[in-house]
Amino acid sequence: MAPESDQKSKALMDLMNNDNFSQHCNMKVLEASEGHSKAKMTISEEHLNFFGTVHGGAIFSLADMALGAASNSHGKLSMAISCSIHYVKAARKGSLTAIAREVSINPKIASYDIEIYDDESDVVATFQGMVYRKNQDIF
Amino acid sequence: MAPESDQKSKALMDLMNNDNFSQHCNMKVLEASEGHSKAKMTISEEHLNFFGTVHGGAIFSLADMALGAASNSHGKLSMAISCSIHYVKAARKGSLTAIAREVSINPKIASYDIEIYDDESDVVATFQGMVYRKNQDIF
Amino acid sequence: MAPESDQKSKALMDLMNNDNFSQHCNMKVLEASEGHSKAKMTISEEHLNFFGTVHGGAIFSLADMALGAASNSHGKLSMAISCSIHYVKAARKGSLTAIAREVSINPKIASYDIEIYDDESDVVATFQGMVYRKNQDIF
Amino acid sequence: MAPESDQKSKALMDLMNNDNFSQHCNMKVLEASEGHSKAKMTISEEHLNFFGTVHGGAIFSLADMALGAASNSHGKLSMAISCSIHYVKAARKGSLTAIAREVSINPKIASYDIEIYDDESDVVATFQGMVYRKNQDIF
Repeated sequence: MAPESDQKSKALMDLMNNDNFSQHCNMKVLEASEGHSKAKMTISEEHLNFFGTVHGGAIFSLADMALGAASNSHGKLSMAISCSIHYVKAARKGSLTAIAREVSINPKIASYDIEIYDDESDVVATFQGMVYRKNQDIF
Repeated sequence: MAPESDQKSKALMDLMNNDNFSQHCNMKVLEASEGHSKAKMTISEEHLNFFGTVHGGAIFSLADMALGAASNSHGKLSMAISCSIHYVKAARKGSLTAIAREVSINPKIASYDIEIYDDESDVVATFQGMVYRKNQDIF
Repeated sequence: MAPESDQKSKALMDLMNNDNFSQHCNMKVLEASEGHSKAKMTISEEHLNFFGTVHGGAIFSLADMALGAASNSHGKLSMAISCSIHYVKAARKGSLTAIAREVSINPKIASYDIEIYDDESDVVATFQGMVYRKNQDIF
Repeated sequence: MAPESDQKSKALMDLMNNDNFSQHCNMKVLEASEGHSKAKMTISEEHLNFFGTVHGGAIFSLADMALGAASNSHGKLSMAISCSIHYVKAARKGSLTAIAREVSINPKIASYDIEIYDDESDVVATFQGMVYRKNQDIF
């Protein structure tokens, strides 16, 4: 990445990592470059549901954070409008990592595929996210 | 509801309202009867994203909690396998209420439609949730 | 409906009922007014899959036609961008009816809930559809 | 592939390519091995909607056919229960190809990611499909 990209990337990560809900859920964006991102959540007691596994809402929230990082990486305010998730493996401990890749982008709409992995590199969930891109710069 | 149903309903609500993640996100099941539920979240600072609106993950989590209450209401352990959400209005303050209704149920799979409202009775999001029903009683 | 609405509604139904793929699949829009529509498909041999039940693609297509009718009813060209479907009952004979209702609409994006019924009024599938509204009149 | 796999693969492809709806829509499975498949549709007039682009129902149907081929490849009858599609580019001519890969499989549920491409190798749509696996052999 060029120095300017580095700065934009860092600014976006700062913005997202100071997001109240992300902090509350202990989620962090580790990487954010154009159309790509990686976010991580270390599992703790607060993430568990009454079965003793990570709550579906916590897994979704991590994927949604990765969606926000990847889609806002172009500098235009982007908001999730439609998301779909498949839960395929229960998670209990360690950490979860969400990796987002851009499938397509046009001036108003962009689409992303996100996979969430556990520490054994097993897929825990897959996520499709679509955003609406507003005529507003995020910086 | 017959007295037995009342007891099952109360036991399920106790179980779900003691769920760690639900407590962490300040979400509560208000009603849970066979195939139906209502869950509520009073919006506070911790639910906001960096735009200043309620994080998509928080809205999803509330719908997912309503899904859990409605689907587990039959007494058989039910886990979300596939969910889809459309975000249609931003939420900033007051409270959000999710109402779940059962679309269909068979021995292994059940499907639910969930709507999330704000205090003005406007729809904030619509949610489709599918669960897998295990051969295991929840009580 | 006022006479003008009647004319717009009729014009839209003509447009959609002359759509090649809809004709090829023997699907027909029966009603289309602002934010609402009803579409029907009489099941025949050509709709069946190798299990002998109506192909998931045929059921989806009927819902998608109802989505097109309801969303284009406002006179602005609207295209599906994200759809989700839950299949809950197999269909074998008779006819299928899809009914669409508008959940929300804003200048660029609108969202619809669609239910597909068989002749016994049982739900066969539920469908969530989102459209992008172009700056282009359909008439 | 071992000879036995070759035979199962060929038998499945024969089954699917004789499916009424697939024939009616001129779709064909080109490859089907364990957890993988490729299906193709040559675009003709009958696939177009009233905008003159390939109908969303036709694109979905092709992805659904790829889902059927990949999920039934293990020899156990598998039926779609939940699917989600993002439409990202309009298609007008040439052919469309859907490629399915298995994300996860357990005794009852399996999940697939499917991408649909046009002849320029551009993504036209992305699709998430989940199936229920019955206790029934397909052969």
